[in-house]
Order: sequence, then C-alpha cells, then structure tokens
Amino acid sequence: MSIRIGIYGYGNLGRGVACAIRQNPDTELVAVFTRRDPSTVKTDLSGVHVVSANDVADYADKIDVMILCGGSATDLPTQTPLLAAQFNVVDSFDNHANIPEHFAKVDAEASTNGKVALISAGWDPGMFSLNRVYAQAILPQGADYTFWGYGVSQGHSDAVRRIDGVLDARQYTRPVEDAVEAVRRGEQPTLTARQKHTRECYVVAAEGADLARIEREIVTMPNYFEPYDTTVHFITAEEMARDHSGIPHGGCVLRSGRTGVDGEHSHVIEYKLTLDSNPEFTASVLLAYARAVYRMARAGQSGCKTVLDVPPAMLSALDGDTLRRQVL
Amino acid sequence: MSIRIGIYGYGNLGRGVACAIRQNPDTELVAVFTRRDPSTVKTDLSGVHVVSANDVADYADKIDVMILCGGSATDLPTQTPLLAAQFNVVDSFDNHANIPEHFAKVDAEASTNGKVALISAGWDPGMFSLNRVYAQAILPQGADYTFWGYGVSQGHSDAVRRIDGVLDARQYTRPVEDAVEAVRRGEQPTLTARQKHTRECYVVAAEGADLARIEREIVTMPNYFEPYDTTVHFITAEEMARDHSGIPHGGCVLRSGRTGVDGEHSHVIEYKLTLDSNPEFTASVLLAYARAVYRMARAGQSGCKTVLDVPPAMLSALDGDTLRRQVL
Repeated sequence: MSIRIGIYGYGNLGRGVACAIRQNPDTELVAVFTRRDPSTVKTDLSGVHVVSANDVADYADKIDVMILCGGSATDLPTQTPLLAAQFNVVDSFDNHANIPEHFAKVDAEASTNGKVALISAGWDPGMFSLNRVYAQAILPQGADYTFWGYGVSQGHSDAVRRIDGVLDARQYTRPVEDAVEAVRRGEQPTLTARQKHTRECYVVAAEGADLARIEREIVTMPNYFEPYDTTVHFITAEEMARDHSGIPHGGCVLRSGRTGVDGEHSHVIEYKLTLDSNPEFTASVLLAYARAVYRMARAGQSGCKTVLDVPPAMLSALDGDTLRRQVL
Repeated sequence: MSIRIGIYGYGNLGRGVACAIRQNPDTELVAVFTRRDPSTVKTDLSGVHVVSANDVADYADKIDVMILCGGSATDLPTQTPLLAAQFNVVDSFDNHANIPEHFAKVDAEASTNGKVALISAGWDPGMFSLNRVYAQAILPQGADYTFWGYGVSQGHSDAVRRIDGVLDARQYTRPVEDAVEAVRRGEQPTLTARQKHTRECYVVAAEGADLARIEREIVTMPNYFEPYDTTVHFITAEEMARDHSGIPHGGCVLRSGRTGVDGEHSHVIEYKLTLDSNPEFTASVLLAYARAVYRMARAGQSGCKTVLDVPPAMLSALDGDTLRRQVL
C-alpha cells in the first residue's frame, strides 16, 4: 500500500513534489490543491488531479500526508496550522527567526487533533540544520561556517526588481572561494559578510532608464547589497530568458574543531550541496520527510516535529534489516 | 547531573574518549576498564581511574553508558553482547559484512536485560552511513560514491608488516582526485578500485633485506594492493618516527542524482571529513552517541540500535527549544 500524498499549492515547489513522487514507488499523488480556479492550473505532468483548495476537507480520509508548497512570508504561517488540524503535514517554512513561533502554532493544532506536522524541511533550514547539529555534537570545541551558492537568491532578485526602471532581475550569490578554502584547511577564520559572499546581478532595464542610477541604487542597498561586493550586468530580455531561466543553488556547511589533550588535532566536517534546481531538490527532501511523517503517525505519534527529531532510517524506503546489511 | 561514562579498553580510541569527555561538561569519566594489570596502564590525562576488567560488574549502578574501545576483529564480537547484559553500551564495530550478526547477538542481550546498545558508531560505519541513507532517500535515482583518505589504513599497514624483512610500515590511502572531481561534476562515472584510490607505503626494512622482493610482494598482494596503483618508499626507522607518527584519515561520501520530469536536473550531495586523528574523531562520535543512548535508556527504550535509529537532536547537549531557535 503506497503513501497517499496531497500537494497544497502548485508553483515550482509543488511541481517538484509531483516529479519526486514519480521517482518513489511507495508514494502516490492523490491531488493538487489550488486557490486558483482548478481549470486554469496547467501542468506538464500527466495524471495530476487538480482540486480547489475550498474542497480540501473532503480529502481528510483520502490523504496520508499533505505537503504544503506555499511561501514562508504569507502562506505557510496560516496554512500549516490550519491544515495540521485535518492532515499530517510537511512544510518548508524557511524564515529562521520565526521558527519558534511557527512551531508553537503548528504544535498546538497538530497535538490537539492527533496529527504529525513536520516543519522547516528542505535544505536550509533542513539538511544544513541537521548537519550543523551533528557536527556541533561531535566537535563541541570549534566554529561553524555556512556558505550559500553558487545560486539564485529569490529575495535579492525581488529587491532589485523593485527598483524604478528595472523590468527584470536575477541575483546570484557566490561564496568567496579563498574563504571556503581557509575554513577547509582548519584555520577557523573570523569572516565578515563581505569576506564570505559576493553578489552578482543581471538586470533588464527599461528603455532610456538611467543605468548608473540603477547600479548605484543596487550596490548601496542596505542589508541586501551594501555589505557585499556586488557586480551589476545589464542584459537584454532575450539574454535573460536564454541564460538565466534555471534556478540553481547550493552551498556548504562546515565545522572546524579541535580534539586531543590540548586541542592538538584539527578536524573539518563539510556538507556540500550542488543543485541544478533548488525547488526540485527541496521538493525531494519534503517527500522523504513525508514518508517519515506517515510512519510517525502510524506509530501513534502526534505534534510538531522538525528534521532534528527524525531518525535517518525513517526517511528511507528500505527497512532496518536491509539498511544494516547494505548501507550501514 | 552529568552522564556517567565508562571506557572499556584503553588504547588510542579509549584515550580519545577520555579526551572528548573533557570537552563535554555534561559527561564525566567514572573509570577505564582494562584486561591488563591496572597499575601498568599509563595515561597522560589527569584523573583517569583505571580498574581491572574483572571488576566491571561492581560498576553496574555507577555507570550510565559504557563505551567499548576494543577492536572489531576479536574484542567487540564477544565484549559488546556480554557488556550489553549489564550496561547501556556504545561500540564502533566496523566489520560491515558482519554487522547483521553482531546486531542480532547484541540485540538479544540488550533487549532481555532492558539495556540500550548502539553499535557501529564512528565515521564509516557511522557518519558516512547516515549520509548515504539521507542522500539515497532524497535522490532515489542516482549513484553513490565513497572515497577514503588521505589517511592511514591500519589493515593495510599490518599486511605490509607481515612481509618477511619488514620491520615497520605505514600505508596511506589516497582518493584519485580526478575521479572525485568527475563525481562532483555530476558525471556518475563507473569506477574500478584502481580508478578510485591509490596506495602509498612507507617501509622500514631489516638490514640486508631484499628490497626489490619486498616491493614486489607488496604491489602484487591480492585484494590489498594488486587492484591498486601502489607506491613503495623505503625509509629509516628515524624517518618513520619523525614523519609518520600521526593517524590522519577521512574521505567523502557523494551521491549524484537527477530530478525533474525527465531527469533533466542534476544534483550532488557531498559529505567530507578531513581528520588529523582518526581515533580521536571516532571517539568524539562515540561520546555523542553515548549521550543519545543515555537519553533513549531514560525514555524506557531497550535493544540494539544503530546511528540510523537516532534522531539528530538526541546527540546534542542543547534542548529542542534552543536547537530550533539557534541551529535549525
């Protein structure tokens, strides 16, 4: 019997979950729920059943785990608690500062209604978080480093798009390779924002716009660009469509620590992701955690969980015996 | 109240656990157990209480978790089941092929006696294993790669030492960098043993020994060296002591997989360790899992576990709230 999955919200992430389900034979897609008119939702995948979000309650007994694919700014803060009252759920809530508040709200609904809710799955928060926890536990005397990129930052791209005269923009974040290498050598450097990442903007400007003014507004933008070395490239709409349609991302989490009688030995733990498609990889993580949520619910658990609460074996389609024989 | 730790066996690994305990204020070392005459066991660490292994039963109520630091060939197969009848235990059993048998024997004793036993902690098996499980679960369509080194292989060093005319030897395993880079680029190459690793031997020969014969016996040794490109360097005992006293190791686990409607996007997940001291790092992993074993035992669990059964949060000295606020 396969795990019956619902997808709530069908953008890049929801489509990624639908793709991932095709790779995992122990899961099946029951329906995609949308707040739009279902007849207007187009998909390049066959067999995707699109249903109005208004009818979600009809599916309470037909879905084992609902994967929420909305955004963290406005969708998930209300949707996850609401749906956790009716379904076991997984979300990718990624606003780090608001995780405790989101956790409390989701936990209240899930606990009251006997559901399992797993929040903040994905890669950061998500796989990066659990690698930070493992590495800190193993090497308590050390320093943590997280580098992002090479990849597209949606938030920074949006910030550039809001500038007067900008028609479209794409912002790439790059780690400073010298800084990464110093950490890999175990040097434990102290690094400023500027020493860790550079930012690169590709901008389509309106005809006749003042390019010098746009560039100045970008590189001096507080928080977003001012603390970094930022490069601005003006390109045509055609170049944007041709060269910048992908959504790559990734990065690495490193911990550098010391052991011994007097800290005489250095160790470096690195976890690195190189992703062609940020939403499809995130979706693949969400689906693996949906499998774990299904198992936790069947084992009688309830309440809000995070990736830190889930034993690795629970993510795998293989059973414990097989894992010990083949993978351990 | 701190977690009371016992160390059973005091070689490089046991000493590493004693060092790690000094870095983890929520743990304390109760005693080191040895099969030697306790008065002959020397340590460079202060406050280490050395006790005869014959008296271990006296400590049943004084120790929360016993960390077994013997070898996988002859010590652990008998010691872990025996001690799991009296203590919660952690071991680093690393003979991959025999894990299912070891698991069954340890599970029988631990379950019957209400103890928690965690076997095969360390880095491979251990951290490498759980990274394989995570990565396979996230990217079901892909290929796995494990590279070891740069580091000292104890088994290969011992094999060289058994050759007639060899007084001492140290064998270093190196990953072939071109192969690692091809995997990092997402190429999913098929690699032979020779294409993945090279082997480098430093040998102290007896005076007058036939060096050409020793070299030939090394490079043609089946399984150990014949499948690899092996380099042999003859050095003096002084050079051995000066340049090869460290026990570095490490390596990386990679998974390269594809997602999308038709596998159009490539992703690479890499977990990499660079370790100055193999035994001290392994010891640090063992102690982190001892914390988890302590918590599982207090929660009323029993039986044999592996790293795949342990939620990451259980390894951390921080509580769930703090982890969600600071690390997630």
